[in-house]
Amino acid sequence: LVSKAPNMGTTIFTVMSALATEKNAVNLGQGFPDFPCDPKLLELVNDAMREGLNQYPPMTGVAPLREAVSKKIETLYGRHYDPATEITVTAGATQAILTIILAIVHAGDEVIVLEPCYDSYVPNIELAGGKVVRVPLTPGTFRPDFDKIRAAITPKTRAILINSPHNPSGMIWSQQDMLTLQEILAPTDIVLISDEVYEHMVYAPNQHWSAAHFDGLAARAFIVSSFGKTYHVTGWKIGTVAAPAAYTAEFRKVHQFNVFTVNTPMQHGLARYMADPAPYLELPAFYQRKRDLFRQGLAQTQFKLLPGEGTYFQCVDISALKVPEKNLSEADFCKWLTTDIGVAAIPLSAFYGNGFDQKVIRFCFAKKDETLNLALERLARL
Amino acid sequence: LVSKAPNMGTTIFTVMSALATEKNAVNLGQGFPDFPCDPKLLELVNDAMREGLNQYPPMTGVAPLREAVSKKIETLYGRHYDPATEITVTAGATQAILTIILAIVHAGDEVIVLEPCYDSYVPNIELAGGKVVRVPLTPGTFRPDFDKIRAAITPKTRAILINSPHNPSGMIWSQQDMLTLQEILAPTDIVLISDEVYEHMVYAPNQHWSAAHFDGLAARAFIVSSFGKTYHVTGWKIGTVAAPAAYTAEFRKVHQFNVFTVNTPMQHGLARYMADPAPYLELPAFYQRKRDLFRQGLAQTQFKLLPGEGTYFQCVDISALKVPEKNLSEADFCKWLTTDIGVAAIPLSAFYGNGFDQKVIRFCFAKKDETLNLALERLARL
Ligand SMILES: CSCCC(=O)C(=O)O
Ligand SMILES: CSCCC(=O)C(=O)O
Repeated sequence: LVSKAPNMGTTIFTVMSALATEKNAVNLGQGFPDFPCDPKLLELVNDAMREGLNQYPPMTGVAPLREAVSKKIETLYGRHYDPATEITVTAGATQAILTIILAIVHAGDEVIVLEPCYDSYVPNIELAGGKVVRVPLTPGTFRPDFDKIRAAITPKTRAILINSPHNPSGMIWSQQDMLTLQEILAPTDIVLISDEVYEHMVYAPNQHWSAAHFDGLAARAFIVSSFGKTYHVTGWKIGTVAAPAAYTAEFRKVHQFNVFTVNTPMQHGLARYMADPAPYLELPAFYQRKRDLFRQGLAQTQFKLLPGEGTYFQCVDISALKVPEKNLSEADFCKWLTTDIGVAAIPLSAFYGNGFDQKVIRFCFAKKDETLNLALERLARL
Repeated sequence: LVSKAPNMGTTIFTVMSALATEKNAVNLGQGFPDFPCDPKLLELVNDAMREGLNQYPPMTGVAPLREAVSKKIETLYGRHYDPATEITVTAGATQAILTIILAIVHAGDEVIVLEPCYDSYVPNIELAGGKVVRVPLTPGTFRPDFDKIRAAITPKTRAILINSPHNPSGMIWSQQDMLTLQEILAPTDIVLISDEVYEHMVYAPNQHWSAAHFDGLAARAFIVSSFGKTYHVTGWKIGTVAAPAAYTAEFRKVHQFNVFTVNTPMQHGLARYMADPAPYLELPAFYQRKRDLFRQGLAQTQFKLLPGEGTYFQCVDISALKVPEKNLSEADFCKWLTTDIGVAAIPLSAFYGNGFDQKVIRFCFAKKDETLNLALERLARL
């Protein structure tokens, strides 16, 4: 067997979760909640199973779920997506993004990613035979550097991948950021892939600016979201793609020969659950309280807090720590922190192609208060 | 947007199911049961949800499910696959096959498919930049033609895709067939992709010969199976890949950046359900009764029965019918049969790249007896 990806390792999330389990550490690495989802949601899935909704759904996803998503986007972002031709249910956001890229990136096409970025983007582009063009976000603030983005665009640029609220930094693109991107893309035929899986985790005074808000972006955008993150069920692996009909048609051509379709009773359960918008409307307040608790705790430690406008992640700078381990690479520091201090985190270097090390690590605060308090207690010992 | 797949349509299964619904026809097209699964299985999934097993499982699948599958393969086919390094849970067999192909097929590599074949194989190979080499199964019997397979092998052949029990024909490769394939592949480094999703639907005196039975095949094989088909839950979209550790490692590199992982509570439910082998051991008898009922009914009609050794499909020849519509293309005949007679079927031409039309159509008999009887009543009117 000749490896197609000789340098492709195991995702950092798998590595750190395994180490956390082995060392019995508090796992603030991989992004997932350690508290239960709403039992109501489980009941609705169970109902769907009991009703016999266990056979192939339509390839595009079950109609009630596509309709519920369409309604949500229209209510929140003021744009109508036709559920029949513009919304597709996926086996999570990662599958959505690979499928988009396989559907639109031709061999040799360039795709711009803004680093740091989620670790599947680059392998996804490479699997499609595309060329990855890495543009750094502004060091320290993680804000988009539009001069650098402009400079990276060539006639071969097929797509640009953005992500706001941003994993790992928690930064949010402002309305002005989105308008500037719109203006830059206007004279081009570049496709926008907008990863908005943290759309409902945005803390005051910030606001989520979806690509759907902007005519000039929406017309060229695949907008990706996820139910797992919003409803505390990351293991269910269900997401969506919203895109103009012509884009959706190309997406579905590949989707049908990748997963074909997505778990039927889970889709129906989610569709019924979405009839009540309260769970996603209340999510920002729910997570803001946890963020504040966690930030206040961290402020008592030697870690330097970075800003955090959204997502369930909080980054910290380790360079001011008074331990010799602060001189380790971020990755080795995270291993040490997991093993010796008992708290797992993710090194930001894992989100850069060249392993850029800025002495910043990421914690996930989607945890019970007692979990956060235990982690803070351990971190305070440093 | 420049289409990557300008000629890729919607799968025939989607098209015919939609037409069946529109025309209120008995849907014997797309392969799925119209009867409920075992309520015990639903209970076990519900238990797993209630226990809070709703967050990311390991990328490779939950350990109990990989262990259960390993045990099943060892019991039935006499080969041990290490659950940790040789078995991976997938979002169904289609996702498994695309992921295998993306992981091993380099641009320009040749991949042999035996036609008629499932309609995702060819697009999967094309998405990976591979070259599809089509070898026909023997017309009429659908048995492998080993001279033609031998002749199709070149130094650029990366893989061969086989499928037994065979969709659409229901044919099963004999032990001798598998030994001959083993002998042909022995001097090569060709990878075997063995789609065995119908492994438990095999009718006496036939027997399923898995690639796992044969040292020389297993050493080079990705073996794909599906829970949806075995347990009457096609909408759950969960399958598995068993392959030697080095193959599995390459598979997982791509898998983790495609779906990453698969629905957690469904995996746990299936693992617990598999503790009892009875459901899959009893499946052949369950479906053989339906097959016999359906074949006996069809024998009273003008349709000419083709053999059927396995799967839940039965093919018939339409050329002896005494209706003018028998001269339509298979595809148009199926539309007519759905619309005017009220029974949906799948044209075999959909399983050939060049649309080869041999006046054969496929029925799915994974239906309640009353559904089969209603369909037979309508078909008898011809
Ligand atoms: C797919 S595991 C990673 C979860 C996640 O999104 C993260 O931790 O960044
Ligand atoms: C994925 S829909 C097709 C189901 C099936 O395997 C078939 O009907 O052949």
